[in-house]
Order: sequence, then structure tokens, then C-alpha cells
Amino acid sequence: MKIGKGVEWSAHTCALLALLPEGAALAGEALAEFLGLQPTYLAKQLQAMSRAGIVKAKRGVSGGYRLARPAEDISLWDITAAVEGAMPLFRCTEVRRAGPCGAAAAECKRPCAIAAAFRTAESGYREALSTVRLPQIVSEIAAGAAPARKRRITRWVEQNAALAI
Amino acid sequence: MKIGKGVEWSAHTCALLALLPEGAALAGEALAEFLGLQPTYLAKQLQAMSRAGIVKAKRGVSGGYRLARPAEDISLWDITAAVEGAMPLFRCTEVRRAGPCGAAAAECKRPCAIAAAFRTAESGYREALSTVRLPQIVSEIAAGAAPARKRRITRWVEQNAALAI
Repeated sequence: MKIGKGVEWSAHTCALLALLPEGAALAGEALAEFLGLQPTYLAKQLQAMSRAGIVKAKRGVSGGYRLARPAEDISLWDITAAVEGAMPLFRCTEVRRAGPCGAAAAECKRPCAIAAAFRTAESGYREALSTVRLPQIVSEIAAGAAPARKRRITRWVEQNAALAI
Repeated sequence: MKIGKGVEWSAHTCALLALLPEGAALAGEALAEFLGLQPTYLAKQLQAMSRAGIVKAKRGVSGGYRLARPAEDISLWDITAAVEGAMPLFRCTEVRRAGPCGAAAAECKRPCAIAAAFRTAESGYREALSTVRLPQIVSEIAAGAAPARKRRITRWVEQNAALAI
């Protein structure tokens, strides 16, 4: 019961892409470098986010990745679901149907009380992550960063996204 | 990102143990049989719940398991944490510290915005599962069960817990 590192990497990737000027992109290798990762480490996540319509890949020498839609339309839940899948955490196997006292199908029209409780808890979890959008993350990260680091990031983005503009 | 079947089995096990009269216990094999499982399947979960103070094992010929504390003091979160562990789903690896623009330690006194958002969402999830106590589950299960099934369960409990009284 764990969210893989790929979600953390992907959220930071999206927060970085949100800083790009219109029309710019960052290569997969540059994105991985920014996170301190080997280039291949991020490939799977970028592919998953691409499939989910969160990032868009542009091919060619000035190619790379950019956000596929406005930053305010991308939530932490979108990123989590894209990378980890949107399957429920708790998957009811209908234990109540099994064993010597198993319930008949007719008694199981409503979900089991246990499954229903997990469903409610998970829906609150998804809801909470859905309200956290990229601009909020970007501004909170910026608020915590020293001015020197902000300048370093701006310079790094200018240098690495230049070709793609 | 998945809760194992063991949590579902354990929740149903506790709901069954909540029906036992004072002083009675059910053998691990009987509990597994009730859920339609091979006897060994439930052993790991019973051990985990035993360690967490949710069930109590009584040794000897009239031995078995019973709840270790009042049913209203056992929540779905207690059971989930006992079986799956209480580690957070999202584990921040401090990606902001890495790479060419990595933050200095002094800039990281507050948790990263991404980790903080997951922490809030998870705390809501835990809270939701913590409010669901065993008596509520038992009464919801009972409300959905046909009278014939309730009689079958009562009879099964009487037959299987008898030795332990």
C-alpha cells in the first residue's frame, strides 16, 4: 500500500513544465536531469502522463514535453491517477458470498458495508487531491524557495528550453 | 497502490468475532473456513491483528481468537493499519533537494507543497476509516442479510465457538 516514487517525480515535472513560456518544451532528458534522475527513469511516467492528456510530446530537434492543458486544469489526483492508475485502493472480492454462511446473490444488491466504507474514504481522498491544482503547487514551492534558487531555476529553464521555443 | 485482500478478510473476521458471546473464541481454522479460505491463508493477518491488540489468541484445546478490546474501540483504520502497516501512502524523497537547481537544507524546513498536499489527503482518508467502528459494520451487514442467513450464521457460531466457552 504505497504510491510509487514516479508520482512524486511526475508532480515535480508538471510543476516545472508549468513555468515554461508559451510554445516552449523541455526534453525528457532535461526533465530527468532537473530531478537528479537518470534520463530513462522518467520515460515511463512521461508516457503515462502523455496518454492521460497531462503532458504533450513534441517531436523533432526542438522537441520535448509541455503541459497538454492549462495548469489550473491539472490536479494532483490527475497526476496520481495517470501514473498509478485510478483503480480503487480497496477491491472488494465479495467475501460475504463465500464460506458455509455465504450470502445469496439476492442479498448482495447493495455493496458490502466494508467495501462501502472504503469507497467513501477513498472518494474523500481523491476529492482532496483533485482540489490541489498545479498553480497552487507552483506558488507554494516558489514561496518556500530562496531568491537565489528561483534565479537558478529561471536560468536553467531558459537554457534548456531555448531550442524548443 | 492497492490494499491487499488481507484487509478485507480481516475486517470480515473482526465483524464475525464481534458476534461472539463473552468468553467465547473461534479457532483460526474456523475463521478461515467462514470466509471460504484455506486455514493457512488467514494466519498472517491474525498474527498482525494480534500484535496490534485487535484480537487476542487463547491457547489450548478450547483456544482460538476473540476481540482484544470492545468492538466500538476497533475501527476500519485500526484493522487496515494492523494488516497493511500505517506508513503513509506517499513517501516524499525530497526531490526538491536533487538536481542542478536543488534546494539547500535551509530552504526545506517546511514540507514540500506536494508532500503536504498528500499528507492532508491521507489524513482525511485515515480519519474517515477511523470513524467506522465494528458495531456499525456489524449492524449494516445484519441489515442487508436475509433472516435465513442470520440464523445460519448464529448456528455456525454456536457450533464452532462452543468448545471455547
